[in-house]
Order: sequence, then C-alpha cells, then structure tokens
Amino acid sequence: MNGAESLVHTLLAAGVDTCFANPGTSEMHFVAALDRVAGMRCVLGLFEGVVTGAADGYARIAGRPAATLLHCGPGLANGLANLHNGRRANTMVVNCVGDQATYHRPLDAPLTADTEGFARGVSAWVRTATNAAEVGAAAAMAVAASRTSPGQIATLILPSDTCWDEGGVVAAPLPPPAAPQATPHAIEIAARMLRAGGRSIIVLGNAALTASALADAHRIAAATGAELLAQGSNRSIERGRGRHPIERIPYPVDQAVERFAGVRNVILIGAIKPVIFFAYPGKPGSPVPGDAVLHVMSRPEHDQAAALAALAAALGAPAVAPPDHARPTPARGEISSESFARSLAALLPEQAIIADESVTFGRAFFPATHAAAPHTWLNVTGGAIGGGMPLATGAAVAAAGRRVVNLQADGSAMYTIQSLWTQARENLDVTTVIFSNRKYAILLHELANVGANPGRTALDMLDLGRPDLDFLKMAEGMGVEGARATTMEQFNDLFAASCVRRGPFLIELAT
Amino acid sequence: MNGAESLVHTLLAAGVDTCFANPGTSEMHFVAALDRVAGMRCVLGLFEGVVTGAADGYARIAGRPAATLLHCGPGLANGLANLHNGRRANTMVVNCVGDQATYHRPLDAPLTADTEGFARGVSAWVRTATNAAEVGAAAAMAVAASRTSPGQIATLILPSDTCWDEGGVVAAPLPPPAAPQATPHAIEIAARMLRAGGRSIIVLGNAALTASALADAHRIAAATGAELLAQGSNRSIERGRGRHPIERIPYPVDQAVERFAGVRNVILIGAIKPVIFFAYPGKPGSPVPGDAVLHVMSRPEHDQAAALAALAAALGAPAVAPPDHARPTPARGEISSESFARSLAALLPEQAIIADESVTFGRAFFPATHAAAPHTWLNVTGGAIGGGMPLATGAAVAAAGRRVVNLQADGSAMYTIQSLWTQARENLDVTTVIFSNRKYAILLHELANVGANPGRTALDMLDLGRPDLDFLKMAEGMGVEGARATTMEQFNDLFAASCVRRGPFLIELAT
Repeated sequence: MNGAESLVHTLLAAGVDTCFANPGTSEMHFVAALDRVAGMRCVLGLFEGVVTGAADGYARIAGRPAATLLHCGPGLANGLANLHNGRRANTMVVNCVGDQATYHRPLDAPLTADTEGFARGVSAWVRTATNAAEVGAAAAMAVAASRTSPGQIATLILPSDTCWDEGGVVAAPLPPPAAPQATPHAIEIAARMLRAGGRSIIVLGNAALTASALADAHRIAAATGAELLAQGSNRSIERGRGRHPIERIPYPVDQAVERFAGVRNVILIGAIKPVIFFAYPGKPGSPVPGDAVLHVMSRPEHDQAAALAALAAALGAPAVAPPDHARPTPARGEISSESFARSLAALLPEQAIIADESVTFGRAFFPATHAAAPHTWLNVTGGAIGGGMPLATGAAVAAAGRRVVNLQADGSAMYTIQSLWTQARENLDVTTVIFSNRKYAILLHELANVGANPGRTALDMLDLGRPDLDFLKMAEGMGVEGARATTMEQFNDLFAASCVRRGPFLIELAT
Repeated sequence: MNGAESLVHTLLAAGVDTCFANPGTSEMHFVAALDRVAGMRCVLGLFEGVVTGAADGYARIAGRPAATLLHCGPGLANGLANLHNGRRANTMVVNCVGDQATYHRPLDAPLTADTEGFARGVSAWVRTATNAAEVGAAAAMAVAASRTSPGQIATLILPSDTCWDEGGVVAAPLPPPAAPQATPHAIEIAARMLRAGGRSIIVLGNAALTASALADAHRIAAATGAELLAQGSNRSIERGRGRHPIERIPYPVDQAVERFAGVRNVILIGAIKPVIFFAYPGKPGSPVPGDAVLHVMSRPEHDQAAALAALAAALGAPAVAPPDHARPTPARGEISSESFARSLAALLPEQAIIADESVTFGRAFFPATHAAAPHTWLNVTGGAIGGGMPLATGAAVAAAGRRVVNLQADGSAMYTIQSLWTQARENLDVTTVIFSNRKYAILLHELANVGANPGRTALDMLDLGRPDLDFLKMAEGMGVEGARATTMEQFNDLFAASCVRRGPFLIELAT
C-alpha cells in the first residue's frame, strides 16, 4: 500500500467520505488511489476558492468535515480566502495539499512555494508529511484536529513521494476531544447578573444557535427580561416558523452602537466579544459600552446546549412557546429589499438552506423571514468576498433533498463564479438569486462616509457596469439554466418553479 | 495631506502611474485620494488574481512597475498565485494592501488576518506602515525595492488609519541600485570552457533574452559551437523574423534529460540551474548530467547585455546574421497543434505580444513560430494556473497599439476568467484563443505516467465536460465578443479580423 492509499483508507475510516478537489500533477497518486479505494465521493471544482468554500458549506450542514484536495502552494493560496471564512465560522475542514517531493524541494522548481507559510494563517493544525509510513497517522490527526470543538481547519501537506512510496499504514480514527463544559461558576455568575436586573444582552454564537439551544435561550430571556442577539455573522442559525427567532448584531457601526447603548450586562454564550467590522475615524471599535459588565459564560468551543440548559435551570425559567407568525403572501410589483424578503418568507421550501452573501441589498432579509418555513441560514463569516456560491455548493452536496438558496450580491459573485459549473455537474439543488445592481454598493456607501463628492476615478472603481455583467450568459456557459426577473411577480414564479425542479437554477434579479 | 494622498503622490513621483485595483472598505481613503491627485490610471479587476497577474504583465512590457490595490489579508490571498508567478518571472510589482486600523487589529474583527504572513512567501520586501507620516517614505522604498534588478515584488501594507490620518509626507523617488556586473573572472572562466571545446550548452534567462542580448549569444555560439537554450519559462523573449531564435528547455522530463545528455559544460547566463518541474519516481531532478561542469557566469540580477557582450569580445566572436526564415502561409483543414502554430506564424501582426498559457496543446507553438513577425513571448513562469489571461490584460494596458494574443488552455482559463471583463471595460486589444479540449489534458498524461487504466473517479476529476464549458457565452456575459472555429480556415479568418479591430475578441478553438 502506498502513502496515498493509506491516506484515503484513513480518511474513510474517520468518517470523511467527501472530497472537494482541484488536483494537479503532484496529486496524481492521490487521484489514482481514489480509483483503487472505493467510497470517497469526489467533487471537482474549477478553482480552489470553490473547493475550500464548498468544504466549509458541507461541514456546516453535514456536521462533519470533508477533505479538500489542492495543488501545491499556489493552489492552496487560491483557496485561502474561503478558508479564512471557514476559520471565522469555526468550520471543520481537512485540507490535503500536494507538494514537491521531499528531495525535489531543495532544487526550487518553479511551483515550489512556502506551502506551510500559506497554510498557517488559516489553519489550527498544519503538518507536512515526511514519508509514506506516517501519512496515515498524520491524516487521522488531521481529522481529529478538524473535529475539535468548535471545529477547526487542519492542513496536511503531502510531498509527492510520501504519496507514491510504498509503506503506507492505515491509521485508526482518533476520537476528537469532547467539547469542554462551561464552568458552574461561570453559569452562576451569569444567573446572578440576570437576576440582579438592569438591561442585559445575551450574545449567542456557534452551537448556541441551534433550534433547541435557542429555545433554552428564550426561556432565559422570558424569565429575566434579557435581550438576545446573535453575532453579526454566524456559521449556522436554525430558524423559521415553529422556532424561536433571533436578531443579529447590525453591521453598520452606528446601528450596532445604538443597539447596545445603555446596556449594563453583556453575557457571551458561544460568542466572541462584539466588534465592529472596520474601524472608522472617531467611532468605537466595539458596540459594547465601556461601562458595561462583560461576562464570558461560555467560549465558542464549549458545549452551548448544556450551558444554556444549565443557565435556564439555575434561573428556574419555564419553557416558552415560539411566536406564531403567519406566513406572509408573496410580494407583488416593484423589486425592493423588503418585497424580496416577503416573497422569500412566503415561498421558501421546508428545510431549505440559505447561503447569504447578499451584502447591502440583503440587510432587510433576515429580520423579515422569521415566519418562513423552518430553514437554516448560513453567513459568510470572515468577510472575505466570494464565499456565498461555494458555501451553497457544498451545503447542497451535504443536504440531498433540501433546497439551497444562495442570496448573492453581483460583485461578490464574480470571485467564485466557477461554482456554477460544479452545481451543474453534480446536479445540485441550488437556486441562486443574483442581486444585480451593477456596482459595489457597499463601497459606494463607505466612500460617501469618507469624503464628499466622489469623482470619476473613484466611481469607476466601484461601478460594475460598462460592460454590464450578464449572469444568465455566464451561467449558461457553465451549464446552469437561468432567467431574469424585473418584477416581484416574475421572481415569485421563477423561484417557486426552481424549488420543485432538480438541479441548479439562477435568477438574475434587477435591483 | 493625509497618508493616502502622500502615497499616491509618492508613487507618481517614482514613475508608477498605473494601478490595478480591487479595493474594499479599508481602501476607501486611497480611492478618495486617487480622485484628488491626478495622474494615476486605475484599472479595475473583478477578482484579485486578475489584478496581480495584470500587474505582472504590465511590468514585463512597460519595464517599470504598476501598483496594485488589494483589500486586507484575504484580498491579498486571492492574488497570491499570480504573485507567485510574478516572483518566478522576477517581475516588478508594488502591492498596496489595505488592512485594519492599527488600533482595531487587536480586536480581531472578522476580516483580520495575517496579512504580512500571506505576503511574505511572494514578496522580496514587505512592510506594514505604522502611521501616516511614514507612508510616503515606505512607498518610495517599495518602488525602489520592486525596481531592484532583476525585478522584485514589494508589498506595502497600509492600516486604514495610516491612510486617513493627516500628516502624510511625499517622499522623493529613491534610485534603485544599478544591476550588478558579472565579474571579469566569471566571464573569463566561461570563455576558457568554450575555447577548450567539448559539447557546451549556454542557458539564458531574464535580460539575456532581449533581441540584442540574443544577437550576442548567437555570436558566441557561432564562434564556439556552443548550443543555446532559454529556460523553460521566461519573463519575456524577443523573437520572430529578423531576430535570433532560441529554443527553450523542454517541459517533459525525458525530453529535457535527452536534450542535455552527454553535455560537458553548462554555462548559466541570467538563468538558474535547470530543474525538472516535478519529481517523478526514478527520474532525475535536473536535466544537467551529474558529471557536467556547471558554471554560473551571471546570476539573474546581473547586467546580462554587458555580460554577453564581454564574453563575445573575449572570444573575438564576429557578428552573425539572423536566419532568413520565410513567413509560412496559414494552415488549412483540420485543427492540430502544428497547424495552429503555422497559422500563428503566418498571421501574427508586427510587434504582437503573446501571453502563453497553452499548456499541452501549445508545445508545438514555440518552435514553429520563429518565422513570425517580430514579437514578444511571455510565459506563465511559476506554474500557477490562471496566469495567462491576466498577463494578457496587463500587457495590453502597457502596450497600446500592439496586439496581445493570449494562447489559453481551457482548464487554466477558468481560474481567472474575470479578466475578460477588464479587457472589455478598458477596450484592450487582446485576442484570446481558447484551446477547448474539455479536459485537464496535462493531468491525464501525468495520471497515465502514474498507473495503468484510470477508473471513473479519476477520469471525472480530469474531465471538464459534463457540462461543457461554453467560453463564448461566458465572454459575452462579460462584454467580450467571440466566435468558434472548428477548422483552420475559420480560425485564420477570425484571427486576422480580430487583429485589425479595436478591443478584445475571443476565439474558442475546438481541439
């Protein structure tokens, strides 16, 4: 057995049976091993940003890691932006990155690069295998590292001779360490703060955003008057009718500051301290007032379900029923952020998954869709543009039978547009809605914040017109059918039809 | 004057007047400064790999650096693969990368990343500005670093407060150090080796591949019987009718080894020691036989024109005329690598620039185009896929009035396909020829080298069909006209027409 075969066997034994791949020459022994060892589903991406973002989306839905197969340093580099997003989502990914043979690296062939250096900024665990015999053990460690709560990115670099040499040894799966428990003391402090009164905000993140964890959070809120907020960007939120709604911390600095104004207690449960996305001259870096008491009840890696249940019990908080929102009817007439949100709430199928990279046009979507059918909402967590389409692709691979709806800004779509081809090849049930405003709208807004009257040079750098992007043509070029909607009625019809067909569909919404 | 304005003034004073940009929020003060300070041509790319590859192509043709404007760590990360290619080309680039404000970085906002860590693997010079007053001086140093022979990548990271704070100081240009001279001793050793006889190969790289340097190299070859070879991948080669032809070291390991078999002397002039692209079991890492004498006459940073002239003089080598190749007539009938090369040689306009990412289909192109009109040939130097289209884009920005011909493999095209939009917006004179074989042909070949009878899983990862990519649709979606050629006659007509129009055109060649 060569090193590559030991790698595939070890991954499969550890429950990693899906591989998002964009291989090159140095990975051909891995590719050959995938033929000889049955059981790995391989999904090809035409660009590495698709591969890594899809692995993120897969893990968020499947609850276990996929592998990626990437080519040498520059191949990994092309995947870094979405690994950054994955790192911020605490997602599970096992990157398998080919590299020059151990003895070839000193010759500095053209593709030789600092692969470990590229990996380090996005990975909690990095190792370069040095011989075939250790590849299996290293792969088992990589999977365990990726499954370490709350989820991590592990990168295993495989010089080509460690794959082709004989002497591979399959390693048994390593049990990932169990999620640690929040301390009783930390829970008691939270209970005391909430009992003492004064305005309190509980910020929830990571596993505190499942439907059952949110039900416990609402018990706590109802019993104490505390307000609940989710982080601004989250790996996954379970929401919709029959579930307890949660607001998110607003993105714009002024709104975020206002939301926290006057709060006495801020309790973090699975969340990190709220931070503004970017600094602005004369504005604070965190929305939390300097005189508020900040208490970290549980960190992202803790067992949030247990922590919330313990806090609810400590407070003697009774169960509360979720609100009984009526499902709205689809919007008609002109397209706006609000009308789109209404139609989405009306038409979203049961158990749909939303991959949200809607940026500015989408700010109304989240608050207005609590009454949609039960669904899962995924954010691009790290702010690296180009996360949405790959996330949708990977989520669809993980969730056969569930519709994935990708709410996608046009500028951001262009970073990883190659995702559409993978959706077509795998016949994935993804409905992509492109919000086509033909500009970097968020940047126009930011530019307006910076100085008055932008001139031609600045406007040209924020304008996506001249020429207009035609997403239907691009989608068709990659095998995905689509249509354009210029009214809400058209959108409603196209969206409803897309949800009952098999395979991908793209709607270009003129906004 | 704020830091951003001092940056723009300093770049302009140092001769950097072109900026390839994909800005984000943290760069809005730079964008605003570009409005207030006249003279910088800004070219927007919709993906950072386009931006960095275009800066590479620009510098290769203009002979001076462009700036890039990139957004934070993940934005830089998206540009790393083509910066890797640029590093291997010894190209000049000045990256300006925005980042979190100095005081905001400790809060670890979502987009915060190890920007310096990402930059280091591709940059000869990296600095993070710490306040507005030092931005100008740092920018002047960055330009000088980029212009240091043979050309380098310099990365200046600009926390947003260093751009928006007042106190910017424009810095005067720093003279880049002159290219060092090869030592008389090293030239004398080369002359002695060549006089002594025995089979000798002179390997040329970097500035030894200009038309005049090649003329001197041919004097040396004619006087001594030495053979001349260029490196396998090169920043730029001046070639075509009236110029001295040069072969390149073959890519396939067996051909490269055969080319050097039995050689006694290998002399490097501006080239690095030849190395095989990837290791293969049981094959050597370098084509240079172990018993050959290897002499480094000049390193890539040396003044190659002076070194070659000195060697020719030491040998008393008289001038030789370039061969008088007849221009071929265009090929007819079926499409093949050979027939394409013949048509290219026949139809290429004077002073065209070729950006070559033709991979497997293109192996016949170079040897068969010595008789084309005088032109410049650019390679993707670092082996990172996705270099061709951005290179063509940047070269066209630098070379108004010259036709750029991008010879482009289909799989590789998909990594930076967004280049087409920039070509349309800037109305660049680029003819893109997509060699559409609908597979990763090079990998099928490599897989065949690895093991017998690839199965379905492996073949699926190397096949770009299902669905077929329609490059005409994609190009149209980005505002570039195109047409398909299934015979050489069709290609000849389309290519000739494209060369006399203004603006971009794409030909999908069914191979």
